[in-house]
Amino acid sequence: MEALLVLAHPSARSLNARLAEVTTKTLTDAGYAVLTSDLYAMNWNPAVTAHDFGAPARPDLPVGDQSAEAYTRGSLSGDIVAEQEKLSRASLVVFHFPLWWYGMPAILKGWFDRVFVKGFAFGLKDDAGRTRKYGDGGLAGKRALTVITAGDRETAFDPRGLNGEAGELFFPFLHGIFWYTGMRPLRPHLVAGTDRPGWDRLDHETDRLRTRLHGLEAERPIPYRALADGEYDADRHLRGELAPGRTGLGIHLG
Amino acid sequence: MEALLVLAHPSARSLNARLAEVTTKTLTDAGYAVLTSDLYAMNWNPAVTAHDFGAPARPDLPVGDQSAEAYTRGSLSGDIVAEQEKLSRASLVVFHFPLWWYGMPAILKGWFDRVFVKGFAFGLKDDAGRTRKYGDGGLAGKRALTVITAGDRETAFDPRGLNGEAGELFFPFLHGIFWYTGMRPLRPHLVAGTDRPGWDRLDHETDRLRTRLHGLEAERPIPYRALADGEYDADRHLRGELAPGRTGLGIHLG
Repeated sequence: MEALLVLAHPSARSLNARLAEVTTKTLTDAGYAVLTSDLYAMNWNPAVTAHDFGAPARPDLPVGDQSAEAYTRGSLSGDIVAEQEKLSRASLVVFHFPLWWYGMPAILKGWFDRVFVKGFAFGLKDDAGRTRKYGDGGLAGKRALTVITAGDRETAFDPRGLNGEAGELFFPFLHGIFWYTGMRPLRPHLVAGTDRPGWDRLDHETDRLRTRLHGLEAERPIPYRALADGEYDADRHLRGELAPGRTGLGIHLG
Repeated sequence: MEALLVLAHPSARSLNARLAEVTTKTLTDAGYAVLTSDLYAMNWNPAVTAHDFGAPARPDLPVGDQSAEAYTRGSLSGDIVAEQEKLSRASLVVFHFPLWWYGMPAILKGWFDRVFVKGFAFGLKDDAGRTRKYGDGGLAGKRALTVITAGDRETAFDPRGLNGEAGELFFPFLHGIFWYTGMRPLRPHLVAGTDRPGWDRLDHETDRLRTRLHGLEAERPIPYRALADGEYDADRHLRGELAPGRTGLGIHLG
């Protein structure tokens, strides 16, 4: 069993780094070989540029097509290939990051932008010629856990909380990245309230993370609807008989 | 009248670059002085690092506190200060970017991560000592328009669409960045379906963008609830009598 841990925090002394150590140790003790991508320590470049693609035969193509061609040709830059190899080996991917502006830090967004190339993570076809996406794709079956620190109080992420409910606030990556590429998104592990003066819940939070990780194998992923199940019509609208009359991100939960 | 245009696309020949030219010309003709931040052309660094803060007096502090201290002390790096000065002058900010993984490209996320520093964009207090956020903040009153290209068909972003409804999918930046800092978020301007082979709607889309921009002054921003109006309780839950029994991101629309 292999797992990939992706850490996105600039300080090696941060709470995020401490929690990532807990993940490494807990998963190792549970029998995983843990691969690590510490993006700041690697000086990861977050910006997609033409340098990613080797000498492009077709610089006139859109960026997505250039990266797909470079993937097929084997000319993607080495830093991208190394991450794709780690991903290919891992059955579990754990992301550790602080919530910055209600999303992931740019360095992590740029890991997805550059590594999740067409032909590798998405854009694959099934035998009938249909695009494999949302519940299927190049990363099908891998489990994805996010461990997210947030300064604000936890209740602000509740279903009626001011910041937006965590599952819906994080829909762009839970559904739009993980589920889109066939990964199985697990409920985000939120470590909130860390901006409170005198915050002293490190022991509590490391215990809680260990407990979560020990039970991970038995967890049911977020039950988003799979495109292949035929629940969306040709316009990619959810069929009328499902969640009838409702709108909102919640309708995509089966 | 001044406007700031922020462009985040690696190719100067892209659809995004073409649409940004339309915005510049249309706003200039309408009497705006248009400032521009072409992030790729500027080789913008997306990753927050300790170099942002000058010589930090307190490297032991969390990143957010270090940046706030550097802002107060005037030791933020020059590239950040230059963007803050442009933002301060602009009453309208227009963002042009392609939708990558259901969010903005990393280079743009890193513009927010690095420029929207505590003390400048958020974390300010009113006379009663309450934090000014969600409807008020350091950028209060500035209007924010996003012009977003997407390969997928437009209907997949409809209220029952597979990708999630555009307004909810983009909630992290519409509500979590713009509204949080007091900006007035306008309905995103989505240019979808661009991956279709033989896409030839450039003239249609440039016309549609011009029309949108001409009517911008009269547009009503997205009516999110302002924190200062007292509609959230001490746990930051929406009060029970508002949108009773409902959950989901839609409850934050007043």
